[in-house]
Amino acid sequence: MIRAIKWRSDYLEIIDQTCLPLKVEYCKLYSIEDVFNAISTLKVRGAPLIGITAAYGLYLGSKKAKLENRKEFFANLDENIDYLSGARPTAVNLIWALREIRSQLENESSQDGLQLREKLLARAQELHEDDERRCELIGRHGQELVPNNARILTHCNTGALATGGIGTALGVIITAAQSGKKVQIYADETRPVLQGARLTMWELKAAGLPATLICDSAASWLMAQGEIDLVIVGADRIAANGATANKIGTYNLAISARHHQVPFYVAAPLSTFDLNIKNGGEIPVEIRNADEIRSIFGKQYITLPDADCWNPAFDVTPPELVTAFVTEGGIIQPPFPQRIEELFLKLNHTLN
Amino acid sequence: MIRAIKWRSDYLEIIDQTCLPLKVEYCKLYSIEDVFNAISTLKVRGAPLIGITAAYGLYLGSKKAKLENRKEFFANLDENIDYLSGARPTAVNLIWALREIRSQLENESSQDGLQLREKLLARAQELHEDDERRCELIGRHGQELVPNNARILTHCNTGALATGGIGTALGVIITAAQSGKKVQIYADETRPVLQGARLTMWELKAAGLPATLICDSAASWLMAQGEIDLVIVGADRIAANGATANKIGTYNLAISARHHQVPFYVAAPLSTFDLNIKNGGEIPVEIRNADEIRSIFGKQYITLPDADCWNPAFDVTPPELVTAFVTEGGIIQPPFPQRIEELFLKLNHTLN
Repeated sequence: MIRAIKWRSDYLEIIDQTCLPLKVEYCKLYSIEDVFNAISTLKVRGAPLIGITAAYGLYLGSKKAKLENRKEFFANLDENIDYLSGARPTAVNLIWALREIRSQLENESSQDGLQLREKLLARAQELHEDDERRCELIGRHGQELVPNNARILTHCNTGALATGGIGTALGVIITAAQSGKKVQIYADETRPVLQGARLTMWELKAAGLPATLICDSAASWLMAQGEIDLVIVGADRIAANGATANKIGTYNLAISARHHQVPFYVAAPLSTFDLNIKNGGEIPVEIRNADEIRSIFGKQYITLPDADCWNPAFDVTPPELVTAFVTEGGIIQPPFPQRIEELFLKLNHTLN
Repeated sequence: MIRAIKWRSDYLEIIDQTCLPLKVEYCKLYSIEDVFNAISTLKVRGAPLIGITAAYGLYLGSKKAKLENRKEFFANLDENIDYLSGARPTAVNLIWALREIRSQLENESSQDGLQLREKLLARAQELHEDDERRCELIGRHGQELVPNNARILTHCNTGALATGGIGTALGVIITAAQSGKKVQIYADETRPVLQGARLTMWELKAAGLPATLICDSAASWLMAQGEIDLVIVGADRIAANGATANKIGTYNLAISARHHQVPFYVAAPLSTFDLNIKNGGEIPVEIRNADEIRSIFGKQYITLPDADCWNPAFDVTPPELVTAFVTEGGIIQPPFPQRIEELFLKLNHTLN
């Protein structure tokens, strides 16, 4: 399996995703600043993977600090959590992972800063392994929604390059294929950063699965031909009512799926649900630099170099356009928000 | 005003639109083969402009031939019409222009091949001037649909670079602005060939109008913010029932406009209507080379160089998603096809 990040005893090795698919280049992150930059420049991306990477970042950030006691350790930790939370504002897994790590460490009784630091590394590694298991469960639950010979449309990248495991939406597709179902995948190229063209096509080739790339705006026409049986995407943050923030273009796809009566599924770990946020209007949407649109990877202009651009990184799909959510805790069918709340209660998740 | 093509006594000078907006490069077309290549490689594009360019192409194609009499002239003409009709299969203006020229020449009584050849050039020039007038009328009728302070979304390029005049959809926007209305334009970048990013943004800058570029898949999210008052696009072929073939992504936009209750207008000359075709299913849709998606202008790969791609150049929007058509003969409101037929009868157009 592809491993987007690997912990190497004193640094984090990542695949620089901005170089894919033409070059597989590895980067070594030695400091928390390296981690911040890798996340904000999209060398590492994908909501679950950002959370895991940031967790390792906390450890790297603690290494240079003087940590004589528990107080100093937590002062340093809180500073680093604040810093990394700002790397990508929409992905809630990032904030969730950082808080999760903190609350686990609070339960440690040690007064020794250096001992706590080693616990921090262990927690980051556990989070990483945990995500792999979550992906497996998402895949196993989700594959039940995939009929044999399904023609599946997906958006952005939600595979091994976006998670600590086989992925969320792409994990569902791969699991369905591994369980013996025949699938045909259509990948939206996903402008402006082209995660579908660069990353999803690369992963699907590695997985030996048949994939066809389309321009984002061709998805509706493909559905009109009756060529799509289901759409499945990931998520960066899901509000309590099921409103789903995901890569720009997702909302557009959801409208089109509804118009053509094609099921529209969202696959994401439960950590993507932000039950503090009641509805989509409260989710902050990151507006990124216009140059992402103006030029291809900063190398080739496709418009006037000073063109005014509007570049939201995400959009928010209202719950009424989602057919079901696929999580590690099972499939959540409507009505939302009731069934979302029920699952969280059942799993005894805190609703903080 | 920008002039996309100019007749220069023995050749056709064109702006090579594949070089815009970073370079304004002119090309000289001396032969019918030059014209065919310029059309099929998108150096010249836009449904009305293709028709005009092809008309000059017929003249260039007649120049090398031995045309001793009327029979030889028409034999050569028919061969050239056949040849040029294949340059772009979806745009009906191309076929319309070639047939229109032929029927005008049939009305000439001359038996002299060389004399007929001079008439052919005169007809091409008339067609060119005629399109300029049609654009003006489309602009004048269409601007009535544009409220003051309108925020307008458009797709592809439908301006001076697509016609013999100020344009169709873009002509409506420019005319509204010239009539004193304040407008804010949003341009879809229009993957894969990026006509919106390259050409529309360039034309709007030249016209001094405020324009913001967006990725195609962001249009729905922009509408959801309440930031779009109307959508206006051009057309490559319109069936008798109003089904509209236009640049890929148009159908997607029409679905989204309906979802957000935003008016969706199609601006096109009457020559775009193909009354021989009853509905959208009969319109041939050109599937172009996968490399248009795989690489940016053949220079930079954005995916695996052997990625399977589906690259339809057009899609077909059903008439129920069109709010109204804007033509040189006036605005056509629903019900379609009745009002379309009525306008053609009123204008005494042949329904052949």
